Amino acid sequence: MPQIVLAHDRFTDGEAKTAEALIRYASDPVVAVVDRSASIDTAEPVVGAAGREIPVVRDADEALSLDADRLAIGVAPVGGRVPDDWRPDLRAALEEGLDIVSGLHDFLAEDEELAKLARGHGAELHDLRRPPPDQPIYSSQVLDLDATIVLTVGTDCSSGKMTTSVELVRALRDRGVDTAFAATGQTGLMLGADAGVVVDAVAADFVAGWGEKIVLDAHEATGADVIVTEGQGALSHPAYGAVTLGLLHGTSPHACVLCHDETREEKTTTFHEGRRFPVLDPVREWRRLQAVADPVRRPSLAGLSVMNGPLAIPDDHPFADVPQVDVLADGAHRLAAQVEAID
Amino acid sequence: MPQIVLAHDRFTDGEAKTAEALIRYASDPVVAVVDRSASIDTAEPVVGAAGREIPVVRDADEALSLDADRLAIGVAPVGGRVPDDWRPDLRAALEEGLDIVSGLHDFLAEDEELAKLARGHGAELHDLRRPPPDQPIYSSQVLDLDATIVLTVGTDCSSGKMTTSVELVRALRDRGVDTAFAATGQTGLMLGADAGVVVDAVAADFVAGWGEKIVLDAHEATGADVIVTEGQGALSHPAYGAVTLGLLHGTSPHACVLCHDETREEKTTTFHEGRRFPVLDPVREWRRLQAVADPVRRPSLAGLSVMNGPLAIPDDHPFADVPQVDVLADGAHRLAAQVEAID
Repeated sequence: MPQIVLAHDRFTDGEAKTAEALIRYASDPVVAVVDRSASIDTAEPVVGAAGREIPVVRDADEALSLDADRLAIGVAPVGGRVPDDWRPDLRAALEEGLDIVSGLHDFLAEDEELAKLARGHGAELHDLRRPPPDQPIYSSQVLDLDATIVLTVGTDCSSGKMTTSVELVRALRDRGVDTAFAATGQTGLMLGADAGVVVDAVAADFVAGWGEKIVLDAHEATGADVIVTEGQGALSHPAYGAVTLGLLHGTSPHACVLCHDETREEKTTTFHEGRRFPVLDPVREWRRLQAVADPVRRPSLAGLSVMNGPLAIPDDHPFADVPQVDVLADGAHRLAAQVEAID
Repeated sequence: MPQIVLAHDRFTDGEAKTAEALIRYASDPVVAVVDRSASIDTAEPVVGAAGREIPVVRDADEALSLDADRLAIGVAPVGGRVPDDWRPDLRAALEEGLDIVSGLHDFLAEDEELAKLARGHGAELHDLRRPPPDQPIYSSQVLDLDATIVLTVGTDCSSGKMTTSVELVRALRDRGVDTAFAATGQTGLMLGADAGVVVDAVAADFVAGWGEKIVLDAHEATGADVIVTEGQGALSHPAYGAVTLGLLHGTSPHACVLCHDETREEKTTTFHEGRRFPVLDPVREWRRLQAVADPVRRPSLAGLSVMNGPLAIPDDHPFADVPQVDVLADGAHRLAAQVEAID
């Protein structure tokens, strides 16, 4: 299902994570990026070789000659609302019968104008952040699953968990390992995950239940031997640690990959009056994760995924025997080898 | 606002926690309990002296002569739906213009018949479990609050956190300490909290934000020197630990009271094929809570609230100097003294 990616005003400044990931990883090809303020002809300057054949155009009209079936929203505007100056593009896409996939907090299907246009042109509006009606409670059934479960965890938000998950899935498949991907955020879902949910939007009591369910669903859909699940947040993040813990308990991983940005000193999110919370040393973050993972299943550490690294690891460091990779530069094959070796 | 409490079929078997708490603690007097299968004349056999003057009747009609303004639903039916055989009572109450307060998962305001009756008779339907529209992100503003914050935590669900919170508020007020109560569950909200939210129903990413908000709101509403917040779940509960961690971070307590049922060996909730998760020793649970509370604020332990105890504490026990109380038997004055002593 060829798709157009909408990324107004932010494609070239590194703030369109979803757009970049769709170009790099989506099983559905990206045929154009829409950004009215970008002054580049193709996506190559942003994402490298993967973007060489993908034109960057000023509005959806320009992209519609390219025979897409879908428009994906590839940036997250502040507040999660639909900016008014996106409406001409969304209207144009719907009038051509394209579906729209959105991870915005505001639901497109509840926007009268867009919903009416979609109905009139046989197009579908997919609001990925809409909480599903199920309210699964963690049952521990996942502990009986005959598959190896891997969860990415991080020392902060935006430390590479989604990218590492996708690269790990690729690397395992390259090695011939039957692997499924369970997504927990909008980008992962847009990439064509085998199962998933935008877990930060579900009712708080069911985070662990959802973590378990998407692992079980991904296995049921594929029968894969390895289930890679995308993590969220960081256990030590004061605003978002709850979701991290729920996924750690719910997915009950055999192994984790710890994601870390070596240049990041403070937790993301803007706090009151500029208060700062430090990004923990990866060893401390990992010990804390292990301490609370039990009583479900205590995971091993399959590797470190470090952005802007490497992390300095002397011979006597607790992680001296743990593979460290930069997945964007080198892929995740060394992580995949570790995962494959898990009994 | 005098209230009738509906507790069909479960008032006498100890399964109507909300009803019992309303009788014991609500600032709004309970004028009758409705339970068609109870064969007692007053609530005294269930709740002791506090129930001596409260008749137990078979249906709402019998209670309506007692001049209530409100009917509160005091039991949680399996699945959270409105049982059909409750409808005559709900109808009778609405036809008399009584408001209904409900913590059910199913929202009464979305029930056509009940919503229409309420409109027709000027009655209000309060669905406490409906997620509020706000989505507050933890900001750390709570760390600047000029008040002592206390959070109850537990080794399991249903280990006395709500009761301990309410008893602690009472005891502090008895001692002349200006104290506010922030509730996190339906019962606490029905009791007339100074602020609160049914936190297990909010979107997962905002649990910590809500924890912070209800503490700030309770302080803003009262200016109290101490804010007691009701906890939920248990950090080590595989299904519900996420909400516990979000509240620990979000409320950023100076001190916690750890609640424990000395006879409970396994975590509540029915797991797959009877799998069991042990209730941790309180010392282990507390160490785990302390390990993940930082980087926000590392709380002290103000005391142990033990049901069906006491917990055996020899002189060399890590909790040897920590007060241990049975709040239902003795109240929370020894806990209150500890809280009052916090700088």
